[in-house]
Amino acid sequence: MKIEICLGSVRFPFHLSTDALDELVERLLQLSASRYVIVCDSNVAPLYGKDIVNRLSGRAVADLLVHGAGEQHKNLQTVNDLMETALRSGTDRASVIVAVGGGVTGNIAGLMAALMFRGIRLVHVPTSLVAMLDSVYSLKQAINSGLGKNLIGTFYAPEEVLADTSVLRTLPRREMISGMCEVVKNALAIRPQMTDLLLNSLQPDSNYADEALRPIIVESLAAKKMVVADDEQECRAGMALEYGHTVGHALEYTALGALSHGEAVGLGMIVAAEVSHRLGHLDEGTLALHRDLLSRAGATCTVPAGIDLDEVAHRLRFDNKRGYLGLTGDAYAMVLLGAQGQPLWTDSRPLVEVPGALVREVLAELSTPEELVAPPSLMPTADNV
Amino acid sequence: MKIEICLGSVRFPFHLSTDALDELVERLLQLSASRYVIVCDSNVAPLYGKDIVNRLSGRAVADLLVHGAGEQHKNLQTVNDLMETALRSGTDRASVIVAVGGGVTGNIAGLMAALMFRGIRLVHVPTSLVAMLDSVYSLKQAINSGLGKNLIGTFYAPEEVLADTSVLRTLPRREMISGMCEVVKNALAIRPQMTDLLLNSLQPDSNYADEALRPIIVESLAAKKMVVADDEQECRAGMALEYGHTVGHALEYTALGALSHGEAVGLGMIVAAEVSHRLGHLDEGTLALHRDLLSRAGATCTVPAGIDLDEVAHRLRFDNKRGYLGLTGDAYAMVLLGAQGQPLWTDSRPLVEVPGALVREVLAELSTPEELVAPPSLMPTADNV
Repeated sequence: MKIEICLGSVRFPFHLSTDALDELVERLLQLSASRYVIVCDSNVAPLYGKDIVNRLSGRAVADLLVHGAGEQHKNLQTVNDLMETALRSGTDRASVIVAVGGGVTGNIAGLMAALMFRGIRLVHVPTSLVAMLDSVYSLKQAINSGLGKNLIGTFYAPEEVLADTSVLRTLPRREMISGMCEVVKNALAIRPQMTDLLLNSLQPDSNYADEALRPIIVESLAAKKMVVADDEQECRAGMALEYGHTVGHALEYTALGALSHGEAVGLGMIVAAEVSHRLGHLDEGTLALHRDLLSRAGATCTVPAGIDLDEVAHRLRFDNKRGYLGLTGDAYAMVLLGAQGQPLWTDSRPLVEVPGALVREVLAELSTPEELVAPPSLMPTADNV
Repeated sequence: MKIEICLGSVRFPFHLSTDALDELVERLLQLSASRYVIVCDSNVAPLYGKDIVNRLSGRAVADLLVHGAGEQHKNLQTVNDLMETALRSGTDRASVIVAVGGGVTGNIAGLMAALMFRGIRLVHVPTSLVAMLDSVYSLKQAINSGLGKNLIGTFYAPEEVLADTSVLRTLPRREMISGMCEVVKNALAIRPQMTDLLLNSLQPDSNYADEALRPIIVESLAAKKMVVADDEQECRAGMALEYGHTVGHALEYTALGALSHGEAVGLGMIVAAEVSHRLGHLDEGTLALHRDLLSRAGATCTVPAGIDLDEVAHRLRFDNKRGYLGLTGDAYAMVLLGAQGQPLWTDSRPLVEVPGALVREVLAELSTPEELVAPPSLMPTADNV
């Protein structure tokens, strides 16, 4: 199926299929690129990157560019190295960058496309659930600074997004859960009418049939469309998509791989809901729905032991939403809900100034006492395998 | 005086004054930035950067960020280092990046502003003649790759441009000549009606009164306005501004500082004019006018000895305009004139496919035989002092 994506003045098609990689390659060839630069991480390269290059070869010039897997490679050095390699191979203005992978690859390749020759064509081939949802209705091509996540980047639109649910079969359970946490976010922050679908479809063991995944993806895109259709820069209504992300980013950054992006955002949503509840904005039922949906998705509802909450608090000071509210003292700028699907607004944005101490108090209560659990395995996050 | 700059949907003011740094600082303060990040090279920092920080201090938070002087620092590593420093100091979305300097600083700071938090406010305070002309009607924030000049970057507009001719008094003669070559380019490629002004005002010794500079600047801006008003990305009519730049960039890159940007472009224009003449497009008088105006501006009309023409030819292969014409064989994509102010078009662009051998032949004829001259001093280009 084809969904036409409209973001302000930007339009591009999203193709969603199952077991149709041949068709995907035909769509790439229709772009008549002087060269196809396939960008993958080291996990996705053997699974799908080489396959796509092989299918293109003989009919077009195609290169495979591989970067290290994981959030720690999403920095300007990686982008620079890949751009130099691409330029050395002969990439020019008529070439197309094809991001085959999860969110990390999508952002790295997206920023490459934005910066090479001040903008060449970009196609996303998302291979994770998160990327299928995020690469479509977000034009953010953001990478990490030494000071925090996603502080550096730009806005850049793809020519098209080519998604095939069959690639999700190789996705580890951890990554599927991560994606479903973002789906839950859409239901909580934007689209309450998705709730029944999720209550019926979510699987704690992440064992999803393709037929179950397609409506979940379509509904999630519909949720995004509601808030970003006229806000391609995600600084007004689109900011509802940042629900759970203030605390979530700080947790993810501090956890060094012990939490997936989605699970970190899930915990961030629980913190936001608790904070909103204690400030008298959100009722107990909606707070409970947060934990219910996240549990059904297979996600944790407690902060794993071993995460340094002081470090989390330090990271929160660098959250990139602070500047919107001009905060200076001990306060964070967060998306809070007044009810399901209804963020609270300050002036022209769905952001609220929240006392720092309250956030840290709620966070501490969500933490697993050290003596009750085994130490978490501190594996680097595989963006996608 | 204030000139309103319009580039497609982008609008910002250009203020041109003389001896009015106080007023300039007042304009900066009107932006109510959470922090002013003044970006300079190591030459401009002691001359103007520190002074502007001092004038802001006490009334606002201001930092001075200094990068090495010269084109060799215009790379992604410098941009990354400065961004990390700025973030560490507490730069946020409400901060303003102020580029105080020449074209190199303008591009470095411009890309910083474009990439930090996916775009924060930018003000240009150009301290060279080139920067006064280029930073205004060009939104290109481009830096160098290991493979060639300006291959990496994006389009980003400043909030305003604040120019004061008094700062040009500290500009070395070499840099003033560089700027005047760009002025000559505007007269040749775009605006023949500037010719008399230039014939009367150009000074080979670069000794210009402020009263002489202002009309030259205003006329040059008028020339740019003619071609880029509806082409903010400079890929259609605006490409006339690239006149002389194909060969010019390759010469400048190879010369390692022995040629200023403007002089390299001047030579590039002479090559383009000779090529166009030999192809039967351009008459002898207009060709002679190229040499006449460039000589009056104090610029060289011969390629200095010591520049490796094989290396220049190699660089030409990576020119970023190749992709527009889809060139594959021994040919370059160049802006050529059919008459003064009238570039030749191919399809929808003022670009022509030129045989590579002809360009190299003309270049060789323009070169000073090695035995006739002293070796050029290979000083690194001071972007501005």
